[in-house]
Amino acid sequence: MSLEFETIAAISTPPGEGAIGIVRLSGEEALTIADRVYKSGTKKLIEQKSHTLHYGHIENPKTGKIVDEVMISVMRAPKTFTREDVVEINCHGGITSVNQVLQVVLQFGARLAEPGEFTKRAFLNGRIDLSQAEAVMDLIRAKTDRAMHVALQQLDGNLSTLIRNLRSDILDTLAQVEVNIDYPEYDDVETLTSKLLVEKAKMVKIQIQHLLQTASQGKILREGLATAIIGRPNVGKSSLLNFLLQEEKAIVTEIAGTTRDVIEEYVNVRGVPLKLVDTAGIRETEDIVERIGVEKSRQALANADLVLLVFNQNEKLTEEDNLLIKATDQNHRIVILNKMDLPNQLNLTKLESLVDPDSIVKTSILTKSGIDILEEKIANLFFAGETGEKDATYVSNVRHIALLNDAESALDDVITGIESGMPVDLVQIDMTRSWELLGEITGDSVQDELLTQLFSQFCLGK
Amino acid sequence: MSLEFETIAAISTPPGEGAIGIVRLSGEEALTIADRVYKSGTKKLIEQKSHTLHYGHIENPKTGKIVDEVMISVMRAPKTFTREDVVEINCHGGITSVNQVLQVVLQFGARLAEPGEFTKRAFLNGRIDLSQAEAVMDLIRAKTDRAMHVALQQLDGNLSTLIRNLRSDILDTLAQVEVNIDYPEYDDVETLTSKLLVEKAKMVKIQIQHLLQTASQGKILREGLATAIIGRPNVGKSSLLNFLLQEEKAIVTEIAGTTRDVIEEYVNVRGVPLKLVDTAGIRETEDIVERIGVEKSRQALANADLVLLVFNQNEKLTEEDNLLIKATDQNHRIVILNKMDLPNQLNLTKLESLVDPDSIVKTSILTKSGIDILEEKIANLFFAGETGEKDATYVSNVRHIALLNDAESALDDVITGIESGMPVDLVQIDMTRSWELLGEITGDSVQDELLTQLFSQFCLGK
Repeated sequence: MSLEFETIAAISTPPGEGAIGIVRLSGEEALTIADRVYKSGTKKLIEQKSHTLHYGHIENPKTGKIVDEVMISVMRAPKTFTREDVVEINCHGGITSVNQVLQVVLQFGARLAEPGEFTKRAFLNGRIDLSQAEAVMDLIRAKTDRAMHVALQQLDGNLSTLIRNLRSDILDTLAQVEVNIDYPEYDDVETLTSKLLVEKAKMVKIQIQHLLQTASQGKILREGLATAIIGRPNVGKSSLLNFLLQEEKAIVTEIAGTTRDVIEEYVNVRGVPLKLVDTAGIRETEDIVERIGVEKSRQALANADLVLLVFNQNEKLTEEDNLLIKATDQNHRIVILNKMDLPNQLNLTKLESLVDPDSIVKTSILTKSGIDILEEKIANLFFAGETGEKDATYVSNVRHIALLNDAESALDDVITGIESGMPVDLVQIDMTRSWELLGEITGDSVQDELLTQLFSQFCLGK
Repeated sequence: MSLEFETIAAISTPPGEGAIGIVRLSGEEALTIADRVYKSGTKKLIEQKSHTLHYGHIENPKTGKIVDEVMISVMRAPKTFTREDVVEINCHGGITSVNQVLQVVLQFGARLAEPGEFTKRAFLNGRIDLSQAEAVMDLIRAKTDRAMHVALQQLDGNLSTLIRNLRSDILDTLAQVEVNIDYPEYDDVETLTSKLLVEKAKMVKIQIQHLLQTASQGKILREGLATAIIGRPNVGKSSLLNFLLQEEKAIVTEIAGTTRDVIEEYVNVRGVPLKLVDTAGIRETEDIVERIGVEKSRQALANADLVLLVFNQNEKLTEEDNLLIKATDQNHRIVILNKMDLPNQLNLTKLESLVDPDSIVKTSILTKSGIDILEEKIANLFFAGETGEKDATYVSNVRHIALLNDAESALDDVITGIESGMPVDLVQIDMTRSWELLGEITGDSVQDELLTQLFSQFCLGK
């Protein structure tokens, strides 16, 4: 079943210091190569049964130098992640040790795996389809439990099954159309066929639309909600930010190999991952109004999925506040009236005339009051009344969303084509196109180029 | 053999996104707890043989929710890292997935492991001694191949064997002394016993000194050489820094859970790990002379193991240069004459009267000339003529060095005691003390408090 490829190797654990680091090999030569560098008192790995673990040392056979004390997993094809022979060398964690083991393995026959190459083989060897392969990466990158759940369902093949059913429906229809055209039994075969096409197109379209309704939420779960916290100096932006970062489970992602400037910070608010935009900037400069004038800040606001606009209700509204309200008028916005522990100075009636009253939350970050309501508002804004639908199939991947949109418009072409009296064999082409577009989601119809591009976004060692 | 402890669990892979994440359990209940959350079509883990791997899912038995698709390693006592039953759950990497698996395992019976608790159990259950346990952590933290090799040798028990032999020598002597005192066969027994004590003390002392000679190098390998790059603006400090960071294998360590300010940068120069001091500061401000005046900068210089003092040989020496030379006079220092590609302006004879002429290296970082010589100088400064002694046993741990020093002075007390005519039974006490001090290195004589403090410095999951 499995195709023949070179044996690849890579570090499969995250970079950094940890108790365990893993070097993974996959391919026909995985066991042979591992045996070249494996030293133990007992049998060779190639003589061992599948799915067993073995203690020993990794040694450079040329220099005789011991590289690390290890535990080796032997997993023979086809019951492995890649459907090929897989060897996992569990070393003592740490940057140097894991790297050295990798170097020895590469020196004695393996090739360094490209990012995502293990998963790509799982796909090429038919163990998983393309949307499942993408789910593997989503699972790794998931910022909240809920995002993970969506990825896990996609990995289990929920989306694939749904898409395959739609494709099979379309294919059945196309076959029926073919039969009708080739063997017209009745005089009104043209009418019947047209009717069939429109009906099917509408039916599939409804299901695609249903899927697409989950898309915006799916995308938020997958990528996080780009959130900007803004407001005048000393209204409590930093306190809010710090509160979120400390009280919530803050997740800091650093893109390896780049400078420390690209650190992304996420906080998990009731299952919604907020990706905090330009938090460093917010912390460093308090002169937000000046910054609003800068093109870059405008851009940040334009890209924000959510703006948390903070006011100090112990102060009167100022011209600056008005500017901020105007600048964020087009955003999903929650207006935070902070410092409720102090006497009121801000004219609430005035404010309610400027912003949606329902978007206002009263808090005192100092005394931690009102924050529950803020969190609830954030969650409701994007997942209103969704708590029961935990098992719905979400579409979360931009590529999938684009393909579903394209398939939908191909189906629209079918419907309007028939309605405007186009001949069936022309309409057939649009129907076939919708079938192909859906196939790209699962990888049933897909080009090499796309594969290369897709898997290159994976992390190393997967 | 193994003591009875609660079953513990922790994430054993480095934090961050990666292909594989591992949750490790250790203890009598490891298999039972894993079975509570493990779901597969086949047998329970407790029915499986030791050192086997099993595919399945982790499920929260209360909610019925699938947490992750996993591969589970079953390793039964005593042939495990801790000598207890060990279960390793290999999950899809990523922060959320691994955390969720850990949460479920904790919810259904395991206790969260303290840092280093797995290794502590390996020690308490007698699989490794204390210096080996410490080597586990050194291995993980090793910044260069050479540092790793030192740790690996310590893990293999080289240092332990050496120390045990010394202790056994001392114990034999003490026993002989006891016999001599209790059953004096000759009249000159006191003289004979004194002679024996002095001889042994001198012999053991020589071996301890021999070990201590490796200490400064061992410490550098283990902890890195704190290196400061200084010089006037535009002499090429940043270029040198960037060259080192890019060309050499730069290792960036971020202490988890803290701010981005504490990132440590290491570069590997011919096996010597340079820990670059305050590199962020160097990059951000060029006004190094002004900073020299600041107490903090003085402190940084005082703590530097190595100073790279950079001059632009295309410019004349200035008063600022003289200040920098004076400020670094007490440091291990290499003087870099940079920009050799440009015409000479700097008075070399003058410079050679101010600094050790042998410490001067001429480079052009722009054209990459002279850098080989710089690297060689750095390596030679700390490891002169050491290339042949790769298998020497190094002492690298500050705790060990302190204990060896204490043991040495206890032996000195024995020697001067005898020489000044102290009674043998008093000198015996010092000899016994040296035996106890050496025992603390291997953990043969050690207190609970020390253990707690030692293992708390470990990383989580080890």
